[in-house]
Amino acid sequence: MVPRVGVVLSGCGYLDGSEIHESVCTLLALDRAGAATRIFAPDVEFDVVDHLSGEATGEKRNVLVEAARIARGAVEELGAAKAEDLDALILPGGFGAAKNLSTFATEGVQASIHEGLSALMRDMHAAGKPIGAICIAPALVALALGGDHPVLTVGNDAGTASALEELGCRHQDCPVQAFVVDREQKIVTTPAYMLGPSIAHVQEGIDKCVQETLKLI
Amino acid sequence: MVPRVGVVLSGCGYLDGSEIHESVCTLLALDRAGAATRIFAPDVEFDVVDHLSGEATGEKRNVLVEAARIARGAVEELGAAKAEDLDALILPGGFGAAKNLSTFATEGVQASIHEGLSALMRDMHAAGKPIGAICIAPALVALALGGDHPVLTVGNDAGTASALEELGCRHQDCPVQAFVVDREQKIVTTPAYMLGPSIAHVQEGIDKCVQETLKLI
Repeated sequence: MVPRVGVVLSGCGYLDGSEIHESVCTLLALDRAGAATRIFAPDVEFDVVDHLSGEATGEKRNVLVEAARIARGAVEELGAAKAEDLDALILPGGFGAAKNLSTFATEGVQASIHEGLSALMRDMHAAGKPIGAICIAPALVALALGGDHPVLTVGNDAGTASALEELGCRHQDCPVQAFVVDREQKIVTTPAYMLGPSIAHVQEGIDKCVQETLKLI
Repeated sequence: MVPRVGVVLSGCGYLDGSEIHESVCTLLALDRAGAATRIFAPDVEFDVVDHLSGEATGEKRNVLVEAARIARGAVEELGAAKAEDLDALILPGGFGAAKNLSTFATEGVQASIHEGLSALMRDMHAAGKPIGAICIAPALVALALGGDHPVLTVGNDAGTASALEELGCRHQDCPVQAFVVDREQKIVTTPAYMLGPSIAHVQEGIDKCVQETLKLI
């Protein structure tokens, strides 16, 4: 059986969208595993950050349109993602997860999450289907599913870990090349660029996270 | 000795800049190999293409600023790249190589190439330092070094191969998971998304291309 996996992107660039290395390493791991991958992103505007200067530019771009750069055009509006059509869901990181898919970057434990994404995650979870979350994307798990008290990791950042625990999660410190799995809740997480320092480390953790997520199908 | 490798990007997105998967797979292969990588891009404007619709938007963006998305900010203006500071050079593909670093996409064998890039490539070549070129980037090799008749590949696209031969190169057909090496000229090429079809195939060829380029140092 070919696993059908949804990947949710939040733009294209770690400061205002999906972390590019994490997204590409996710797609690589899924392709190597023989998965049938569908990429989704919401059709919403976001605030552009200049990745050379690190400064906000005041410009707006569209999450779906920019995510299409990583997806080579093959991206669908998030509303097209239905739990019954997917066997697993993977959420790469980047500030877009905390700014475009939720308001976690600015509102922390008071944050809201994109309603369609939250519904998709709750539907997947209720159907016993696994969710993998990378880097800061475990904040999305906390916002959607924290009430079920999943075990997860964002590396070793005490402030972020504390916020996720306040949302109901149980946090475990984890090195970048490894992952944390909650087999009962079917949640798999890896720190990626929450720790870095470089792409080879990040790729190793993501590859293991994706493989573990697929094993839980 | 830690190999010092320059990677030249042309933006962020295959239709108007660097092919993202190819660029990330290049950076991954270099990091795994223990290389000290510096990423360069020219400080020039380019015409934006919407990667969802495939249509030009009429908007302009800056190659250096957009390349910073792939580089996570760690990108330098192309003029900072000096052959004496580098042991090898790698050129990922994407239409940016043929539109922003040269005019090959529109002018074919009549194309011009970015002067600073051409000088860098000729300096590297004259110093006996290897150059790896991915996907359509062998067109840059042809424009800068075609007079030296390097053997190279762009996969099996007859029209492109014929243009490169007109520029002086000797073309060899090559599958995506492999590479062509001209050991005398120290040019290594792999087809990547000239063939595809998917990221796992592309990554395999790029990994071999990068490793072979490093062997020629």
